Amino acid sequence: MAGTEIEAIRALLAASPRSSNLAERRERLDGFGAHYPLPHDVTVAPVDAGGVPAEWTVTPEADPARVVLFLHGGGYVSGSLDSHRHMMAETGRVARARTLALAYRLAPEHPFPAALDDALAGYRFLLESGLSPDNIVLSGESAGGGLALATALSLRDAGLPLPRCLWLASPWVDLEMTGASMDTKAAVDPLIQREYLTELAEAYRAGRDAANPLISPLHADLEGLPPMLIQVGTTETLLDDSLRLAGLAASADVAVTLQAWPHMIHAWHMFYPQLAEGRQSLASAGAFIRAHLGDGTAVRHPTIGA
Amino acid sequence: MAGTEIEAIRALLAASPRSSNLAERRERLDGFGAHYPLPHDVTVAPVDAGGVPAEWTVTPEADPARVVLFLHGGGYVSGSLDSHRHMMAETGRVARARTLALAYRLAPEHPFPAALDDALAGYRFLLESGLSPDNIVLSGESAGGGLALATALSLRDAGLPLPRCLWLASPWVDLEMTGASMDTKAAVDPLIQREYLTELAEAYRAGRDAANPLISPLHADLEGLPPMLIQVGTTETLLDDSLRLAGLAASADVAVTLQAWPHMIHAWHMFYPQLAEGRQSLASAGAFIRAHLGDGTAVRHPTIGA
Repeated sequence: MAGTEIEAIRALLAASPRSSNLAERRERLDGFGAHYPLPHDVTVAPVDAGGVPAEWTVTPEADPARVVLFLHGGGYVSGSLDSHRHMMAETGRVARARTLALAYRLAPEHPFPAALDDALAGYRFLLESGLSPDNIVLSGESAGGGLALATALSLRDAGLPLPRCLWLASPWVDLEMTGASMDTKAAVDPLIQREYLTELAEAYRAGRDAANPLISPLHADLEGLPPMLIQVGTTETLLDDSLRLAGLAASADVAVTLQAWPHMIHAWHMFYPQLAEGRQSLASAGAFIRAHLGDGTAVRHPTIGA
Repeated sequence: MAGTEIEAIRALLAASPRSSNLAERRERLDGFGAHYPLPHDVTVAPVDAGGVPAEWTVTPEADPARVVLFLHGGGYVSGSLDSHRHMMAETGRVARARTLALAYRLAPEHPFPAALDDALAGYRFLLESGLSPDNIVLSGESAGGGLALATALSLRDAGLPLPRCLWLASPWVDLEMTGASMDTKAAVDPLIQREYLTELAEAYRAGRDAANPLISPLHADLEGLPPMLIQVGTTETLLDDSLRLAGLAASADVAVTLQAWPHMIHAWHMFYPQLAEGRQSLASAGAFIRAHLGDGTAVRHPTIGA
């Protein structure tokens, strides 16, 4: 039985159906985020992250030496700093870290590998600012989850220092949509259907092979990646992306934790102000991050705003 | 890269190869447990648990109102209270609960459903002692993990109150051995190979269908089961049992957490006194249990020894 809170969010989504117009789609996703006021104790600071428009979010709980680098969702064609600012604030609070959200370039104007190039630039910006990679979490939601994995794979293959851990929420890692849940969960997923994903994938790929491991990390060898937390809702057509990713990671000797959240929909964390499971999922991600970065009680490098 | 501690355990296992003689097999597994001294602050109390020989293990940290019911591993033919007593002590400490380990009947002397009947009797014993099912964790390792699942399924189907959560370590849930890891991990698994499992399965089934969901819970509909934590090592032939079980649970809207522990071998928790990952895995299971049962700081029913 699903709870009344998730039913309210389903109603909210149904009342604001996705447009076929790109500008309206982007406005819709930004609107879901802007709907939630930002707590008064959150400091937001725009920053040029190695050429990528980005934004720091800092709560009083944040250890400035620790950073969660975040890649928003939106199918590579929508999503922004506005859509996820509230979620970044809460993430930083529970992780006791600063968050750096990237406004990476979007398709169809900027297809692959523009987003990946921007994510790599944002990560290098953190390294060059003097942060230890052991104090960096690389994270993403939906398409941003796949992008975070592609970023980690690129870092590994380039011999660059890897982030301490990965946090992936509802990650999209198979741009060929071959998961069984694409059909078995279609009737219960209010957001993500095969036709929509096909359109997104074509915009992002722009003719490149969907089986490219940097486009569909489900085709990658994950050996050597840092510990990862994967969180997925059980009413997602993308459920099997997470299940198969967890299996691929475990088979490659990666430390992987998979959490399946009953009755949660795609990217449910976004709705945390009105959804207990959203808050619990963020708290659980925060605990995972704190366990990997250390407890964050010691402020090692007081460089807020750097 | 595996650490030196797990290499030492691999050497220990290699120095004491498994016998084809049943009595010697049982002695070997008991010996691995007896090898580790019990901490001085642990109280061990034998008990008749509804006709099943059993044993309470209590540490000073235990809230007596909270109980972890445990079903040991050993392929349904070996394992005992002796083999896992040390692990029970540490489990109770980190879970802040009493542990009740069952000496359920073993095959080939007592094939299916003797072990399941005993597990059910042990659970009913806890209910009849006045414990709230919300304060009971049902747990098991290896064959005991499959048995814990079969027990939960039987409780559900009988309309009995379910335990608050399940903890499954290296569970064996497919007695047909159809997982890909049965082959892909064969070269790195020092304990569990297809031939050995086939022998165990035949002893336990005694002619019954391996696809019976109470024998191979991978064939069960898991709907309605409580939250479960599955812990598995990445160098196990049984890795795919855990991966597929997690997928089956998630698809059925069960709250499931899967943890894959790099380079860990089957049932590595047993070796926790000399293995950091063993202690970490138990601590993580303890955290999962505490999160589900409440924080355990309040002693609600001081009935130690009940």
